Amino acid sequence: MGSEKLPPLPTRVTGLLGIQYPIIQAGMVWTAGAKLAVAVSQAGALGIIGAGSMKPDLLREQIRKAKAETDAPFGVNIPLSRRDAADLLSVCNKEQVKILFTSSGHPMIYTPALKEAGCIVVHVIAAVKHARKAQEAGCDAVVAEGFEAGGHNGIDETTTLTLVPQVVDAVNIPVIAAGGIADGRGMAAALALGAEGVQVGTRFAATVESSAHETYKRQIVDAGDGDTAFAFRNLHPVRMLKTPFTRRVQEAERRGAQKAELQGLLGDKRELQGIFEGNLEEGMFEAGQSAGLVRDIPPAAEVVHRMMAEYYATKNRMP
Amino acid sequence: MGSEKLPPLPTRVTGLLGIQYPIIQAGMVWTAGAKLAVAVSQAGALGIIGAGSMKPDLLREQIRKAKAETDAPFGVNIPLSRRDAADLLSVCNKEQVKILFTSSGHPMIYTPALKEAGCIVVHVIAAVKHARKAQEAGCDAVVAEGFEAGGHNGIDETTTLTLVPQVVDAVNIPVIAAGGIADGRGMAAALALGAEGVQVGTRFAATVESSAHETYKRQIVDAGDGDTAFAFRNLHPVRMLKTPFTRRVQEAERRGAQKAELQGLLGDKRELQGIFEGNLEEGMFEAGQSAGLVRDIPPAAEVVHRMMAEYYATKNRMP
Repeated sequence: MGSEKLPPLPTRVTGLLGIQYPIIQAGMVWTAGAKLAVAVSQAGALGIIGAGSMKPDLLREQIRKAKAETDAPFGVNIPLSRRDAADLLSVCNKEQVKILFTSSGHPMIYTPALKEAGCIVVHVIAAVKHARKAQEAGCDAVVAEGFEAGGHNGIDETTTLTLVPQVVDAVNIPVIAAGGIADGRGMAAALALGAEGVQVGTRFAATVESSAHETYKRQIVDAGDGDTAFAFRNLHPVRMLKTPFTRRVQEAERRGAQKAELQGLLGDKRELQGIFEGNLEEGMFEAGQSAGLVRDIPPAAEVVHRMMAEYYATKNRMP
Repeated sequence: MGSEKLPPLPTRVTGLLGIQYPIIQAGMVWTAGAKLAVAVSQAGALGIIGAGSMKPDLLREQIRKAKAETDAPFGVNIPLSRRDAADLLSVCNKEQVKILFTSSGHPMIYTPALKEAGCIVVHVIAAVKHARKAQEAGCDAVVAEGFEAGGHNGIDETTTLTLVPQVVDAVNIPVIAAGGIADGRGMAAALALGAEGVQVGTRFAATVESSAHETYKRQIVDAGDGDTAFAFRNLHPVRMLKTPFTRRVQEAERRGAQKAELQGLLGDKRELQGIFEGNLEEGMFEAGQSAGLVRDIPPAAEVVHRMMAEYYATKNRMP
């Protein structure tokens, strides 16, 4: 795989974000710090710092680090369900972050003020009605995330293949496809469905610059099809690799465990224990079904380069 | 939408089956009789008679009817888990059916004899390891069916977007994508992933020639995203539209109902009551997530024509 420059691929999403390739690295907890975001942005795609696992002070430090290391655009992901979401957004505002990806909350609360402040706001949704609400709230684009995606997910279980075209038909703003995309074939599929960009999580989680634990990265590489599970369906659905912890959750769910027990099992340190500490017994190893397509741990720039090369090759070989 | 002839789209699948367009109509229970199969085959795609809801005598009659009405190739789908699978296959053999799609059972038992008899055998799978087994058994192709597909489904819940490229990487025989495909965009996505054909169920279930009940067809048209459910997960997973019956099943599952109760709820007439009789209270309305993309009840030939026209348009607009 050479490192020769591939031609840019302009869409409304690359225009909106000021990037060359319509690839966005998801702002994953315990994984997507400044190091990963900078590597992706320097490669011509969009890197995102994931604030989901950061306190405001750490987020400020990571933003400053990224700004010091690249002039390329990067973004921050803010889960709006966080109790301190306003504090995180205030840090972004003071540090002049211009690209915000918001998730897991109502876009109407913060979007108007963020637009007023000159930000680009992209909201993550998993259902058509939420895409419409994001558009009404003034969002510049939506990420349509399917059932196969890693981490927390929608309750409808609609897959990327069926969600994306329905969202494209329902809104006028550009749609970014997420869930199940780890290579240039998946990217070509997403653009065929009408998406104008892709958000990629699991593939970037297993890169050199990802801040996740080596055990976690290695588990992604070793996973085949059928090696993730969708758990906590009736509480707060989340997709994760099948580990000893996952099996305990599945056992509890099969015998009809109720909310209190499941809440206790979920706790609030499982992502830290799994993704950051690599603890297979106690931790939650969030990952998408695309883990089955991830077979190595390359530098993030190489992921961008491979995806683009494979996208062009795929388009050329389509009958 | 005109009826001018679109150029054929040759792949290994069209070559294998002797058809013009790499579109295969799924052999759906209570839906896919000779009438639907003939309409699809006459339009240049592959029609399939679904033996899943037929006794041997009815299957014989339907095969003879199809043969009388078209010279174009058509196939028969046989669920190998049926107790009388051997009898159904014997009818196909005597009536000289040359194309068999087999599902829900082990391909090793019947494939060698069918190949000996000169048949083309395509097996439906939902996991990479089963694709490998089908190839070893001598199958000519596999249908890789994702979680979003209607009706009975695999236990791993792997979606079409992630299953298809993993199967393509694992076997040398051609791969047909199924699950979530209802238009030319989905078809283009599937071919981008490396499939060489698509199997389409729900879109053909809501056509003029489908033998399903009008209430069932109308429910598909009215469905949006999030209007199907995946039920009987721990028994015999099946995707269906959300109806009063579905809600009873989901309630039972949420409180941890065990196998015996679920078996009683599933019974053995639910498909008949739902798909054929249109009984919303008691019947099971099997359908895929692509129901959200189905907005009318056209003739089956028009579905083939639209998919092809949209496929070519999609390929041309991809950046």
